[in-house]
Amino acid sequence: MKRAKMEELYKESLRLLKERGVTPEDIADLVLFLQRPYEPDLTLERCLESIDAVLWKREVAHAILTGIALDQLAEEGKLPQPLLDIVVSDEGLYGIDEILPLSIVNLYGTIGLTSYGFLDKEKVGIIRELDTKTEHNVHTFLDDLVAAIAAAAASRIAHGEWSEPEHEL
Amino acid sequence: MKRAKMEELYKESLRLLKERGVTPEDIADLVLFLQRPYEPDLTLERCLESIDAVLWKREVAHAILTGIALDQLAEEGKLPQPLLDIVVSDEGLYGIDEILPLSIVNLYGTIGLTSYGFLDKEKVGIIRELDTKTEHNVHTFLDDLVAAIAAAAASRIAHGEWSEPEHEL
Amino acid sequence: MKRAKMEELYKESLRLLKERGVTPEDIADLVLFLQRPYEPDLTLERCLESIDAVLWKREVAHAILTGIALDQLAEEGKLPQPLLDIVVSDEGLYGIDEILPLSIVNLYGTIGLTSYGFLDKEKVGIIRELDTKTEHNVHTFLDDLVAAIAAAAASRIAHGEWSEPEHEL
Amino acid sequence: MKRAKMEELYKESLRLLKERGVTPEDIADLVLFLQRPYEPDLTLERCLESIDAVLWKREVAHAILTGIALDQLAEEGKLPQPLLDIVVSDEGLYGIDEILPLSIVNLYGTIGLTSYGFLDKEKVGIIRELDTKTEHNVHTFLDDLVAAIAAAAASRIAHGEWSEPEHEL
Repeated sequence: MKRAKMEELYKESLRLLKERGVTPEDIADLVLFLQRPYEPDLTLERCLESIDAVLWKREVAHAILTGIALDQLAEEGKLPQPLLDIVVSDEGLYGIDEILPLSIVNLYGTIGLTSYGFLDKEKVGIIRELDTKTEHNVHTFLDDLVAAIAAAAASRIAHGEWSEPEHEL
Repeated sequence: MKRAKMEELYKESLRLLKERGVTPEDIADLVLFLQRPYEPDLTLERCLESIDAVLWKREVAHAILTGIALDQLAEEGKLPQPLLDIVVSDEGLYGIDEILPLSIVNLYGTIGLTSYGFLDKEKVGIIRELDTKTEHNVHTFLDDLVAAIAAAAASRIAHGEWSEPEHEL
Repeated sequence: MKRAKMEELYKESLRLLKERGVTPEDIADLVLFLQRPYEPDLTLERCLESIDAVLWKREVAHAILTGIALDQLAEEGKLPQPLLDIVVSDEGLYGIDEILPLSIVNLYGTIGLTSYGFLDKEKVGIIRELDTKTEHNVHTFLDDLVAAIAAAAASRIAHGEWSEPEHEL
Repeated sequence: MKRAKMEELYKESLRLLKERGVTPEDIADLVLFLQRPYEPDLTLERCLESIDAVLWKREVAHAILTGIALDQLAEEGKLPQPLLDIVVSDEGLYGIDEILPLSIVNLYGTIGLTSYGFLDKEKVGIIRELDTKTEHNVHTFLDDLVAAIAAAAASRIAHGEWSEPEHEL
């Protein structure tokens, strides 16, 4: 039953990401960008597999669901003021969109933290797209979530799969 | 102008806390509880002054505004599913309400972290009240926010006021 | 090869913990204390298995090796001043011993954070022992590390084993 | 007395940074690099003042003293194995050097986190120098500490000086 609940969260996370314009392939490009300097043979498949494992984590689904809900409520004008203006304008001093995805990055160790900060600042690939196509769209939380998922998936690859004994089976 | 904007955020945070049933005096009781073992002469006034300084921080206001908005939207049934059920039931594995107030605790150093965890687990004073009077109310984020403000204010007292040179003037 | 390296780190962590007076059974008691209220049937074996999985994580080994090295160097008077006095006295405002084990707690999600804070403050079981038997021993980092391992292992149990798909096999 | 103790910590932090090859001016260059895109009129003096305020924080001094001690003990071969090899080689999966300076960054809000990650990854200015001149020197912790101080000082400038009421006086 717990497993079925988790599967629902996983599917809903994937669905929301796609609905907001982010495919697993978009995120895989970021993972390749981060990790290929260290592993020249890294394939897109391996990146996609790692992203999938990240999305199967409950904490990850919780962060995605909460962050995207805040983006959507902001788009629809349903957040109370002055929060609405702060989220819509992605105000520079608003840091909640940056702390929430830490619950994703942290799951794969502290080495993901600098990749997360880097993606967030450099705005590579899909993150730049999300940052620019914001006429009617609010992506205040989404771009940080995507950076966090990519950083987590890259960190997971860096650590190798056998970090827990059962992974070896 | 920046100052006026901050004053607005400060006042709105205070107003929201009161509207949701939390007074500065409630939080001051928690600060006394945390800090008196180390400072037997600690007064309620000193605790209130420290809470006030904490609430004047922009990051603190941002966390309060965001967390309480999520509680209120959950109460009104305005969060999308399955997030709505998760927040309304304060599901045990949902950890976003615990990570968001870290942006408050962290501002006053790592020693506040254990106080925050302690208050959150032991549910002292107003935190217990918030946890029990939940017939129609959703306080999933509020109790963690209050624990964080109290831990931050206690940590600020522990560090003393002169942690920056200008404080001495 | 990577696997062999990790096994070395795992064994060294276990050896160091035992040498400093902490057995897996001591930690399992803390996990039971934290988690049994939610799972009355929880066995000591399950707790030991969870602790073992936590200790197999590279980040965990790194934190244990670093923290215990600092404790030992302090005992032997080999840290430079004024750091030596600060670590030996476990000065109340020194928070590095509290932030370092976050690299352990964070791996299992934010829900472990409050358990970590709670254990650290309440000083249950072996943590209290470490805190008191300090005539010649320095356990400034060790008690926080033990609290973090227990919080992580309890959090891992709370999340269930199948948090990644391969765990189901 | 507390004030005198803090002054000692502040002076020792400055002394250690200089001894290891890092001047406040080196860090100010990083602050300018981070913050000038948002404040074209930002002066080096303002950056130096902000760095000074950061270094007056006790948590910051504690992080600097601990991190540099680990670097120096590694240089002198005084860390136990296998930690010694891990720190000397600044092994890619070792993340303790990245989590320790979070106690600096966090003090000035979450917006500093991405700047920290960015500096750490891009290795700008003095950070690149520290990263390359490592024939006999170990700077595993120092480069992350410097990135954290710069990110904190930039974040402090972004927030403005009057984030607490007493700053206005």
